[in-house]
Amino acid sequence: MLIVMRKDATGAQVDGVLEVVSKLGFKGHAMPGAQRVAIGITGNKGPISADHFRYLDGVTDAIPVSKPFKLVSREVKQEDTVIQVGGVTIGGGTFAVMAGPCAVESREQLLEVARAVKEAGASILRGGAYKPRTSPYSFQGLRDKGLEYLAEARAETGLPVVTEVKDVETLPMVAAYADILQIGARNMQNFSLLEAVGQVPKPVLLKRGLSSTVEEWLMAAEYLASGGNYQIILCERGIRTFETVTRNTLDLGILPVLRELTHLPVIVDPSHATGRWAAVTPLARASVAVGADGLMVEVHPDPARALSDGPQSLKPSKFKTLMQGVRSVAGAVGMRLA
Amino acid sequence: MLIVMRKDATGAQVDGVLEVVSKLGFKGHAMPGAQRVAIGITGNKGPISADHFRYLDGVTDAIPVSKPFKLVSREVKQEDTVIQVGGVTIGGGTFAVMAGPCAVESREQLLEVARAVKEAGASILRGGAYKPRTSPYSFQGLRDKGLEYLAEARAETGLPVVTEVKDVETLPMVAAYADILQIGARNMQNFSLLEAVGQVPKPVLLKRGLSSTVEEWLMAAEYLASGGNYQIILCERGIRTFETVTRNTLDLGILPVLRELTHLPVIVDPSHATGRWAAVTPLARASVAVGADGLMVEVHPDPARALSDGPQSLKPSKFKTLMQGVRSVAGAVGMRLA
Amino acid sequence: MLIVMRKDATGAQVDGVLEVVSKLGFKGHAMPGAQRVAIGITGNKGPISADHFRYLDGVTDAIPVSKPFKLVSREVKQEDTVIQVGGVTIGGGTFAVMAGPCAVESREQLLEVARAVKEAGASILRGGAYKPRTSPYSFQGLRDKGLEYLAEARAETGLPVVTEVKDVETLPMVAAYADILQIGARNMQNFSLLEAVGQVPKPVLLKRGLSSTVEEWLMAAEYLASGGNYQIILCERGIRTFETVTRNTLDLGILPVLRELTHLPVIVDPSHATGRWAAVTPLARASVAVGADGLMVEVHPDPARALSDGPQSLKPSKFKTLMQGVRSVAGAVGMRLA
Amino acid sequence: MLIVMRKDATGAQVDGVLEVVSKLGFKGHAMPGAQRVAIGITGNKGPISADHFRYLDGVTDAIPVSKPFKLVSREVKQEDTVIQVGGVTIGGGTFAVMAGPCAVESREQLLEVARAVKEAGASILRGGAYKPRTSPYSFQGLRDKGLEYLAEARAETGLPVVTEVKDVETLPMVAAYADILQIGARNMQNFSLLEAVGQVPKPVLLKRGLSSTVEEWLMAAEYLASGGNYQIILCERGIRTFETVTRNTLDLGILPVLRELTHLPVIVDPSHATGRWAAVTPLARASVAVGADGLMVEVHPDPARALSDGPQSLKPSKFKTLMQGVRSVAGAVGMRLA
Repeated sequence: MLIVMRKDATGAQVDGVLEVVSKLGFKGHAMPGAQRVAIGITGNKGPISADHFRYLDGVTDAIPVSKPFKLVSREVKQEDTVIQVGGVTIGGGTFAVMAGPCAVESREQLLEVARAVKEAGASILRGGAYKPRTSPYSFQGLRDKGLEYLAEARAETGLPVVTEVKDVETLPMVAAYADILQIGARNMQNFSLLEAVGQVPKPVLLKRGLSSTVEEWLMAAEYLASGGNYQIILCERGIRTFETVTRNTLDLGILPVLRELTHLPVIVDPSHATGRWAAVTPLARASVAVGADGLMVEVHPDPARALSDGPQSLKPSKFKTLMQGVRSVAGAVGMRLA
Repeated sequence: MLIVMRKDATGAQVDGVLEVVSKLGFKGHAMPGAQRVAIGITGNKGPISADHFRYLDGVTDAIPVSKPFKLVSREVKQEDTVIQVGGVTIGGGTFAVMAGPCAVESREQLLEVARAVKEAGASILRGGAYKPRTSPYSFQGLRDKGLEYLAEARAETGLPVVTEVKDVETLPMVAAYADILQIGARNMQNFSLLEAVGQVPKPVLLKRGLSSTVEEWLMAAEYLASGGNYQIILCERGIRTFETVTRNTLDLGILPVLRELTHLPVIVDPSHATGRWAAVTPLARASVAVGADGLMVEVHPDPARALSDGPQSLKPSKFKTLMQGVRSVAGAVGMRLA
Repeated sequence: MLIVMRKDATGAQVDGVLEVVSKLGFKGHAMPGAQRVAIGITGNKGPISADHFRYLDGVTDAIPVSKPFKLVSREVKQEDTVIQVGGVTIGGGTFAVMAGPCAVESREQLLEVARAVKEAGASILRGGAYKPRTSPYSFQGLRDKGLEYLAEARAETGLPVVTEVKDVETLPMVAAYADILQIGARNMQNFSLLEAVGQVPKPVLLKRGLSSTVEEWLMAAEYLASGGNYQIILCERGIRTFETVTRNTLDLGILPVLRELTHLPVIVDPSHATGRWAAVTPLARASVAVGADGLMVEVHPDPARALSDGPQSLKPSKFKTLMQGVRSVAGAVGMRLA
Repeated sequence: MLIVMRKDATGAQVDGVLEVVSKLGFKGHAMPGAQRVAIGITGNKGPISADHFRYLDGVTDAIPVSKPFKLVSREVKQEDTVIQVGGVTIGGGTFAVMAGPCAVESREQLLEVARAVKEAGASILRGGAYKPRTSPYSFQGLRDKGLEYLAEARAETGLPVVTEVKDVETLPMVAAYADILQIGARNMQNFSLLEAVGQVPKPVLLKRGLSSTVEEWLMAAEYLASGGNYQIILCERGIRTFETVTRNTLDLGILPVLRELTHLPVIVDPSHATGRWAAVTPLARASVAVGADGLMVEVHPDPARALSDGPQSLKPSKFKTLMQGVRSVAGAVGMRLA
């Protein structure tokens, strides 16, 4: 059982609930979260009626849950979360394709790609302006300039924009431009960033960490939700294993498991997962077939000269073929394209 | 460059080739394999013409290769290997579904499953008679009796049979009954078994080891091929990673890579990969979509009472649903069912 | 070759160097780091003399390097980095033991542990005030209060203090109290935090990420160094593998490799590595024997009631035994205790 | 509870025990092992007295056990297993060093190494005669000739010999020469080989599989023990992880755990674990410090020309330094060298 207090609940109200829990013979754990207090109950052998708590002062909800993640769990919410962004639907039977360059490199490059992916049928434009890079000496993105180009591409094509936010400092700037805030794999357990993004009223795309378990990933999503942001899209992008012929190991096997555990939509990034462009299209088709809610794909007009992730980027012509395959498999499994 | 000697080549013929290699200014490495000698050449900076060697005494072929695996590589053979077994085609655009119980438990159980999978559209019957088990105290299979039941099920349904061979001792017995010899994940680097099976004129299904790299897997296939058996089907069945919500991590990302590296057909076993029956059907669809040549699926009439691998076994009715999904995606990607 | 520009180098000076590089027939890559520009040179087939660059305007150094990490590499600096903090030496043949509770839970708890570890021979006090936690509902640390208790414990015992900094926002506060700033495993690739800490004139303890390669770890250290902070202590704390009998897999095998690759001191955290208190003392002895420069160990007066990481915490009496073992092995391998 | 039947127990005796179990209200599981039947009991909520079963016909023992591995568990046998072989003691406070070449390459090579390791203080000679190799084209060992050279080296130096047995076919030949039979990492779950070796009255050195959990490893040892061979030495040799700067990741953290779980001696192979000769000596010292019962180390007179595993082999002079370090740390932790 999880008792969720209102954000403005007072210490006295929390104590009041704890007292009720105690009188019922159970143990209450006040859990001061980033945004609000929740109260977990242990010591009960069978189920407890939520009615004991639901109407107490300061309580907003009482939720019976068996998992460590609560608000994002299927137990707490049966129906799929469906996200609307700039006229595009993500989740609930609609398949959304996000495509664009790994990094925004120039106005021309971005506009060229944006037009191409729009024409091929993508519904959202991706592109990195602030780039977290393994080396301090690597290209770190066009930053603010990159955001401006993204806005221009959106204005021209009508495609909403997803772009990465790498720290709390640049969050306001990124949030001012982006339609969807992307949290990268290396930041999946940057809890301060999760808390800050949890307070922004924009959809979030949360990438799975390089070696995150499903439970840790859902706990990261719980940080966002407990902060008040329920518009979360999970993005599987491959995990780190001993195998090196692909950059990472795409873990499609967890998608049916995620369907059972969470109500959040899940998309797949086959570009980062494999690091090989020739593998991207087959895995895009597999992602539709396994039941994903969408894709994130890297497209570059000239992959050989890309400033980052060239080997895994598709040329626009190859992306067109990808979209044909996706459309065809989507039809076979009863999904409609966004 | 790999010079492959005939099986009956004499020591003098090998020496003759080495002498020619030496006169050309290169270094020859006589590699005494299980079945025949091959001669590798190093020290060359550019390509060497195969014509220098192809017509020497005792030589059967001269192959320019850059990978450590030779005979199974796409470099050596461009066209896909297609395997015919009991009227069923595996590879080359045909999708073959192998289904049946993890272990043959009784005559009745096997016949019931065999009829059900045949009716649903499977083309090959699977079932373990000799079972390698992690615990010495676990059910080790019905052994010879299991083989007899498999033969009976084949006679009745017309489905060819794939069953595991776990050691050299029981190989003659298993080979007398099986249409396809399965080598399990834990035996993938049992080189003595690979050498022995390399001499049997029957197709082999070679499962990927629990933590085998693609290269090691292809080297294991090379053992079979260098012994003379080229009828090899690779079977991806999940690798071991840190993630525990699934039994293993199904590595679909290597399938496009395998297409580049090898001419052998590749099938997928989603049952062992996930250990969860609810994930099997979505991953079966994904396997078709990614371009696999077939599936291996566990079906049991009463999974709750299965002597092994119950949690990952499908009931016959669920398997029917799986086949519908597979058929539908196969149509979308232009594959025909075997 | 890496040409390191002065922090105050002008764009014109950078262009001047690039021009020289170009005239020599090579390619120059201006790499705008967080703090200064460095210029990498490629296109050279053999070594280039540093004298071509060393005396150009704005250049501070020209370093021939073969690795992607430069400033932290053994190639760039032969002699071991030795760090002095509050009278304690880390590195260069001195073995430093950092001990204390996972989290500061109360004034009494901290002071009790601080006295106990001091008496047993520890030279630095550890304790978390700001705690990054997997769950938003878990105890997040005493924060500022925790820092005050640490300062009090330092004043009483004379032990310098190491404590975690979890984000840029709280960095000034933590830096005001801590003697050594700890960057946790989940923040190892929080590049914004690395950049910020790179500008603070305090030693940094950089934990290895859960699934970081040695190269990625050294690249994270390079972020700190390229920002101007060279006082870096690496801390091996176990990596994530398939094995679950220990919480993580302690990777002592990389210590001899790190000695070759970097001049930075390396310590070991056997508490987080195993998650089992009974394994901590044997692994502490092994860490001395393999050549580590120190240890970080969790000690709690009452592990069963610890608010975090109880199962891996040692009671003060067990820690005393640990110190005896460490002292004894240190003597055997010619190390002196700090 | 595990009831162990005598090898010659009849079916009627097994039925008699099952009947008694059933009358007590529990469920009996006859577990037909390779050598004898054991009967597991489930359905009991508390402990059952062994006296119910110990004196029934055909019963040899009744053991209360909570783990899936029984005969090798510390629960079943409190005192450490100590193995005597050719005058050398392994386990029980004595530290045994096994050293020699990866592969026996020639009579001269082997004798030279044998003399050198004996002089430096090794107590057992290692050397591979039958080599399982990843490639069918690699050197497969001198086979019978190699065994003869090992016997000659033993005769001259007095060192007992450990050598690998790779299959059931060559087991009689290897067993005729070897003092300790080594089962390699790739054969750890070759259950037919385990069953066969379980019947040979010689000590066995069982290497951990490349990605074996501790539980699977102990289950493999259980195969040997359930076959009647209790003289088992476990050998940790590194596991497969994402890290590639070392060949494998040496998992010293499990040694304290193994001490709790099993009574079998455990040694460490730092040569295969790291694949880098410079890391072998530091890790050998760490192995003593963590509490291992011995080491297995590769020594070669000319590593650069070794037919296998050159990069991880020590020259005899380096091995002498290793032994000095081992002796010194052994003294510090109260172990005596064999």
